[in-house]
Amino acid sequence: MKVVLLGSGNVATHIGRAIHNSPHTLVQVYNRSIENGEKLAQELHCEYIQDIEDLVKKADLYIISIKDDALEGFIEQMPVVNGIVVHTAGSKPMNILRKFPSHGILYPLQTFSKQRSLDFKNIPLCLEADSESSLSSLKGIAKDLSNSIEFVDSDKRLTLHIAAVIVCNFPNFLFTMADDFLDKHNLSFEILKPLIGETVDKVKESPPGTVQTGPARRGDKKTIEKHLKFLSENEKLGKLYRFVSNMIDEYYNHPDNS
Amino acid sequence: MKVVLLGSGNVATHIGRAIHNSPHTLVQVYNRSIENGEKLAQELHCEYIQDIEDLVKKADLYIISIKDDALEGFIEQMPVVNGIVVHTAGSKPMNILRKFPSHGILYPLQTFSKQRSLDFKNIPLCLEADSESSLSSLKGIAKDLSNSIEFVDSDKRLTLHIAAVIVCNFPNFLFTMADDFLDKHNLSFEILKPLIGETVDKVKESPPGTVQTGPARRGDKKTIEKHLKFLSENEKLGKLYRFVSNMIDEYYNHPDNS
Repeated sequence: MKVVLLGSGNVATHIGRAIHNSPHTLVQVYNRSIENGEKLAQELHCEYIQDIEDLVKKADLYIISIKDDALEGFIEQMPVVNGIVVHTAGSKPMNILRKFPSHGILYPLQTFSKQRSLDFKNIPLCLEADSESSLSSLKGIAKDLSNSIEFVDSDKRLTLHIAAVIVCNFPNFLFTMADDFLDKHNLSFEILKPLIGETVDKVKESPPGTVQTGPARRGDKKTIEKHLKFLSENEKLGKLYRFVSNMIDEYYNHPDNS
Repeated sequence: MKVVLLGSGNVATHIGRAIHNSPHTLVQVYNRSIENGEKLAQELHCEYIQDIEDLVKKADLYIISIKDDALEGFIEQMPVVNGIVVHTAGSKPMNILRKFPSHGILYPLQTFSKQRSLDFKNIPLCLEADSESSLSSLKGIAKDLSNSIEFVDSDKRLTLHIAAVIVCNFPNFLFTMADDFLDKHNLSFEILKPLIGETVDKVKESPPGTVQTGPARRGDKKTIEKHLKFLSENEKLGKLYRFVSNMIDEYYNHPDNS
């Protein structure tokens, strides 16, 4: 299949690399900003276009992977093409693409940073399409990119996106808060890494609800109060600690209020 | 060294196994509840005692590993011994052990479940002692249990314990909330596992603050509002989502208010 990539951010970069390493052919990378677009096109050995009017009309698949809040405006400007047009956003419904006769979704459930290489084969790809024939074509390329293909409608995709924020973005922010806190006390985040690794290894084997540990799980209010007292100089972290501890305590120790 | 283990919970079990696999000798396991205590003593091939008066007086090291909120009461009952007496609690100061002529801390920075086996060698052991000679003996056994020994005073240990709650107990609770949420929508937590794995792999290489992604990081209020609307039927998760998203948004996009 001939593929055009529209965008050159984190998600676009990783999808582009996966296609480049597949039997399919990238023919163009579009990006309004010349610097990122040209760099990615060069890496992927394909044409760079800055003007959407230069879009090739005969590709089989167009993957729009730009910022969520710019997506609808961009789709409006884009010329109508016959190939399948998909976007990669977790929280945008498929029907924003309805001006294209054949359209769908290719949503990779992963967190991407340009500088990190990832084995794309392990990334769940959530697919949706306007018709059986679009879905079948989309599946044809998706199965060459990943071993994990899911068929997910727009509502379920939104659900997955919310869950992804909760299990990825939120924990990473907790790591950041802990890093800052240790730094303030001249301790290194390094010492927490075995603990963080084990926290995740545990839930690969057991449902997370069954392996919860810690003072809030035990309903150990004395330890919680001690921690909060120590955090009294650190207003934000104290508020966060109290908020989450209360939720854990209610969940396990006062489920009737939940 | 001859070692006595007081307690048979998750932490005691893992420390006991590590000692059992080291050149040192476990001589007794004490536990008030016969069922857990006897089982652990059997596993570790040593004597079980239910009555603290039966405590052997000539061991070199006594490791008290019982619930934080029962610790002080237990120490009061315990006969004075000449060996080093340590506890394993993150949030209890060393001086609650001052009745023992030689005392200290052996705090493993890890989350423990009985049913999971762990390579104890990778677990950071935080040590503290009342004197150079106690510390040196404690270090003598600790280095046979783990490759990662840290000397940490009571204040720093409390700091580490708080950080451990934030990077382990809190993320695990977020996983639980996501699991429940997906379950309610007939989706499986399984699909999130590659994402969770990558979230943690990322921070092994990069400071967490530099790899934050997601709607709140981007200041993408439209997506946040969409997620909150979807969560309106789920009051607790909605509150949690709003609370953490606001913190991330402030941290990255309005740092002056932070």
